[in-house]
Amino acid sequence: MYHLRQAILALCLLFCLMPAAGAFEHYQPLPGQPPLPADNPPNPAKAALGQRLFFDRHLLGEGSPLSCNSCHDLASGGDDGQALSRGQHGHRTARNTPTLWNIGFQTVLYWDGRAPSLEGQLLDHLRDPTISRAPNLGATIDWLLAEPGYRRAFARAFPGEDPVTGDNLARALADFLRTLLTPDSPFDRYLGGERSALTSEARRGMQLFEDTGCLSCHFGVNMAGPAPGPAMGLGDGFYELFPNHLGSAYDRRYGIADDLGRFAYTGNPWERYMWRVPPLRNIAETAPYFHNGSVATLDEAIRVMAKTQLRLTLPEKDVQAIEAFLRSLTGRMVLPEEMRNGGE
Amino acid sequence: MYHLRQAILALCLLFCLMPAAGAFEHYQPLPGQPPLPADNPPNPAKAALGQRLFFDRHLLGEGSPLSCNSCHDLASGGDDGQALSRGQHGHRTARNTPTLWNIGFQTVLYWDGRAPSLEGQLLDHLRDPTISRAPNLGATIDWLLAEPGYRRAFARAFPGEDPVTGDNLARALADFLRTLLTPDSPFDRYLGGERSALTSEARRGMQLFEDTGCLSCHFGVNMAGPAPGPAMGLGDGFYELFPNHLGSAYDRRYGIADDLGRFAYTGNPWERYMWRVPPLRNIAETAPYFHNGSVATLDEAIRVMAKTQLRLTLPEKDVQAIEAFLRSLTGRMVLPEEMRNGGE
Repeated sequence: MYHLRQAILALCLLFCLMPAAGAFEHYQPLPGQPPLPADNPPNPAKAALGQRLFFDRHLLGEGSPLSCNSCHDLASGGDDGQALSRGQHGHRTARNTPTLWNIGFQTVLYWDGRAPSLEGQLLDHLRDPTISRAPNLGATIDWLLAEPGYRRAFARAFPGEDPVTGDNLARALADFLRTLLTPDSPFDRYLGGERSALTSEARRGMQLFEDTGCLSCHFGVNMAGPAPGPAMGLGDGFYELFPNHLGSAYDRRYGIADDLGRFAYTGNPWERYMWRVPPLRNIAETAPYFHNGSVATLDEAIRVMAKTQLRLTLPEKDVQAIEAFLRSLTGRMVLPEEMRNGGE
Repeated sequence: MYHLRQAILALCLLFCLMPAAGAFEHYQPLPGQPPLPADNPPNPAKAALGQRLFFDRHLLGEGSPLSCNSCHDLASGGDDGQALSRGQHGHRTARNTPTLWNIGFQTVLYWDGRAPSLEGQLLDHLRDPTISRAPNLGATIDWLLAEPGYRRAFARAFPGEDPVTGDNLARALADFLRTLLTPDSPFDRYLGGERSALTSEARRGMQLFEDTGCLSCHFGVNMAGPAPGPAMGLGDGFYELFPNHLGSAYDRRYGIADDLGRFAYTGNPWERYMWRVPPLRNIAETAPYFHNGSVATLDEAIRVMAKTQLRLTLPEKDVQAIEAFLRSLTGRMVLPEEMRNGGE
């Protein structure tokens, strides 16, 4: 883990010191892999198992019409295009489904960051009756134990006794999710020195994104702000207010302040309307926007953010330039061959 | 914490070294107070606040017909006498409600021990829509903030900024629960040297309880077996099988093996039918019995345990002797004056 961080740091430094393609030293390109936890080292058998589980409806209980991919549709931006997603038995999820592309760079999970790891978040999901029809996690494991193909796949992925466990199920899924990277975005190619990768409007938007103040929260590899949570040794205090300025017309129009944010979970009054900063990579592919999915278009999301966070009404041409920049953050969503042909 | 444990140890040693009232050196009397966590030192203002919250239906959301005391009825053994308890909106809880008397001696909470502390378990409860009508913990805190009486009580109990928080709410309730002790049971008086406190039948039951093998799991202050969980620095591996021997007629009659135990939560196949050993103090007051509340009487519970755990069919007079002993474990349930008069 230490060496990995060193390597990532070195890579970041390398890019920062390169002959600048512009003066954008505060932007970070996408590394070749995300941070990897010590208790879940990557291996291809594990990731292949995780991928198979991800697309298997049975994982979410007998008769489930949904697989993980139903809401986190990897062929369609990694989400489902709905404000709130459908769950089992006609339920709706409480918040907008985030994309899973580049999810490995997120240090804490959920909009309020309440899960301290991808593995922990996956166990929460598998135990959540909104998401799984199985009466409990043990029943899910019993189903896997009854499937010889899965028994063999777990034995390959986790050599040793009792490979089929709740923790290993979460590890396999997480290992697969950490392979979901979107390299080669125009933005990354530009940072790599390919000046023509961005239009002049997108370059202007990139500068505006920094000058206007967007970058002060949306920085880092995933443009998801300071890494909260223990994974990065930073405590768990790095959350941001949304709305930062209460009372704009947008609050009511989009119900922005109806959800209390972290306060709803922790009960700490100083965390009212506090949220993890959502990542912006591939944002053009993940409408609708915000925790409640209330805003349908990217340009409107930019207007809302300028007003609620920075008290700014941006000129329309600046909104469009920032939108052009944000659209340059869409990379290649590299799907293994099986995904393209298989799926649900 | 260290000194407290020293003191408890000294007290235990003292009792063990006293002129024995019989040869029952494996039995432990009830100490004057349970272990106290370093981050929640006891104080009377805190316990008084916790007590008030415990009896206040509003704590479980607007319009709640239930307070904590509805299911954990302190005037009636600390539980509600039902197999599974009623929750909000016609829900039923998934398992039998345990008594709260002497709960401070339990190192992990829930039948499967999944909560590592009383405070953590209380937060789980307050976030559980089966138990609370509040849409989330933040809404509960907002209600407390809107009540001047509670604001003052929190400020007294937790001097400093922002006293009304989710964590402090759990601390106040837990501090109150740790005061719920049942001293002066015939059993404790007997261990203290008062030979006439137990009938000869109960004394014979006490010996049988040890000789038959019951004591090998039900030992310790609460007769709840080895202390699982990190609180005692023992890891989290101290759980027991129930049923230990599958296949007796009782399995089907009482649905004993319908619930997978810890496996249901952890998904670890080796924890199928594993449970925290339930405490036996005041057991005569907390029918019906077992995780599913399927057994109505104490004598039948003894028969079931003998068969499923030890493969024994006890002579009826031994069942009765053990029952007489278990009935001697009922202590004085010391209710503060306000509880007797107030409540729901």
